[in-house]
Amino acid sequence: MPTADISLNLATVRKQWGLRDAVAAAARHGFAGVAPWREMVQELGIAESARLFRDTGLRVTGYCRAGLFPAADAGGRQAAIDDNKRAIDEAAAIGAENLVMIGGGLPQGIRCLDTARIMFADGIAAVLPHARAAKVPLALEPMHPMYAADRGCITTLAEMNDLCDDLGDGLGIAVDTYHVWWDPHLGREIARAGHRIIAHHICDWLVPTRHLLTDRGMMGDGVIDFPAIRRMIEAAGYHGVQEVEIFSEGWWARPGDEVLSVVMERFRTVCQATP
Amino acid sequence: MPTADISLNLATVRKQWGLRDAVAAAARHGFAGVAPWREMVQELGIAESARLFRDTGLRVTGYCRAGLFPAADAGGRQAAIDDNKRAIDEAAAIGAENLVMIGGGLPQGIRCLDTARIMFADGIAAVLPHARAAKVPLALEPMHPMYAADRGCITTLAEMNDLCDDLGDGLGIAVDTYHVWWDPHLGREIARAGHRIIAHHICDWLVPTRHLLTDRGMMGDGVIDFPAIRRMIEAAGYHGVQEVEIFSEGWWARPGDEVLSVVMERFRTVCQATP
Repeated sequence: MPTADISLNLATVRKQWGLRDAVAAAARHGFAGVAPWREMVQELGIAESARLFRDTGLRVTGYCRAGLFPAADAGGRQAAIDDNKRAIDEAAAIGAENLVMIGGGLPQGIRCLDTARIMFADGIAAVLPHARAAKVPLALEPMHPMYAADRGCITTLAEMNDLCDDLGDGLGIAVDTYHVWWDPHLGREIARAGHRIIAHHICDWLVPTRHLLTDRGMMGDGVIDFPAIRRMIEAAGYHGVQEVEIFSEGWWARPGDEVLSVVMERFRTVCQATP
Repeated sequence: MPTADISLNLATVRKQWGLRDAVAAAARHGFAGVAPWREMVQELGIAESARLFRDTGLRVTGYCRAGLFPAADAGGRQAAIDDNKRAIDEAAAIGAENLVMIGGGLPQGIRCLDTARIMFADGIAAVLPHARAAKVPLALEPMHPMYAADRGCITTLAEMNDLCDDLGDGLGIAVDTYHVWWDPHLGREIARAGHRIIAHHICDWLVPTRHLLTDRGMMGDGVIDFPAIRRMIEAAGYHGVQEVEIFSEGWWARPGDEVLSVVMERFRTVCQATP
């Protein structure tokens, strides 16, 4: 029987399993849903992936990932827009509840984050009509500032909230604890996001962190106060699934079933608003 | 003949040289000043270090470092306050132009950055009268958010500006490009800091960054726009030295004279407001 309130981002077990096996494992361990990555879905095929999710009865709580609009020339920016439209179509085809959007990094040779930020906003505006027509909400996800140069020029919830104010319907916010836990305005901006929150990702910050990309932590192994953040998110009106997303060489090296058992145990003991 | 507008943070060559040799090298290469660390000065002795700086004729553009007030119990917090007062006395004894203050990390067992932030503000308030009496300005330095858990709970210029607003005279701001370059409010908060800016540290952000602590970049090797930030700082009214501070296993492994030659060349070609 599925646990109603947890989903598995499949990157968490990407070195253990391909899409079919990962989805079967998520079902077996009682996850309510999964969040697949584009390369996994494209490898199996869109139609076949859609059938897999439908047959397994799992929700697709998010599709990873798009955005990444900044590019040094107009051709590159148009290519990003075209690719985002394809990602929207894929998300619709597999029944994903949203498409995760990250800022992207600095364009080659350009040392100006403000330029990248403008390109991200322009890109969102360009694909938003397509997303609305496809009924795929775009989940805007700020990334930790250590990724500003090469992945996520948008680093704060405040910036994503501003963008939602500017562009209106069809946009939502993804709150990933790993990316935003440090923000001095975390409480204020989660409250401001309110009903816009459509995704809540969980992952811990380890001390020390030995690698910028692949040393993220299992909930409870680091310093993030998950109940406190969950309380903020529930107070803002979001009571949906928490999606566990851990990039970790350490956890990738363990058997997938062991990882998912620990995830489930930590989710129950570490991640509830009222322990 | 010294270059008027560059100083050397001695951590940049800490694996090549002890204090005496590093200071001699800084003078030889034409730096206007140096910024020593406490452990170096304590090792040589405060009086002897003071004599060294005086005899060499170099400015001491900053003393590293203090702050770090958060602690899990009252005894630990008092110990931090006492240690900060000693650091202020040392800074005064060696003629340092300011004492660099960083936030400190989460206290052991406490998963709340707001608590750490309050402890930092309380600590600053507790030592500020001592700093004023000693005529040692405290240079408040926000750190990159990737250090929030274990070193720098204060991550933005806005927070440090707020603290200056609250506590008044005797406080200043240190703007370190490495720590703040990603900030979406960088321009606004540098302008707001205005005459409070008393230190400008320079170091580049590398892509990729392979280690959170020891893979900082030589100016020009990364993505930071040094002229743009320098223009903001000069527009705010600060025309003082830029202090180069690079923690890098790569540069620590090279001969010190080679490192300083590259620093000088990059400072001239990469770091000026008007190239």
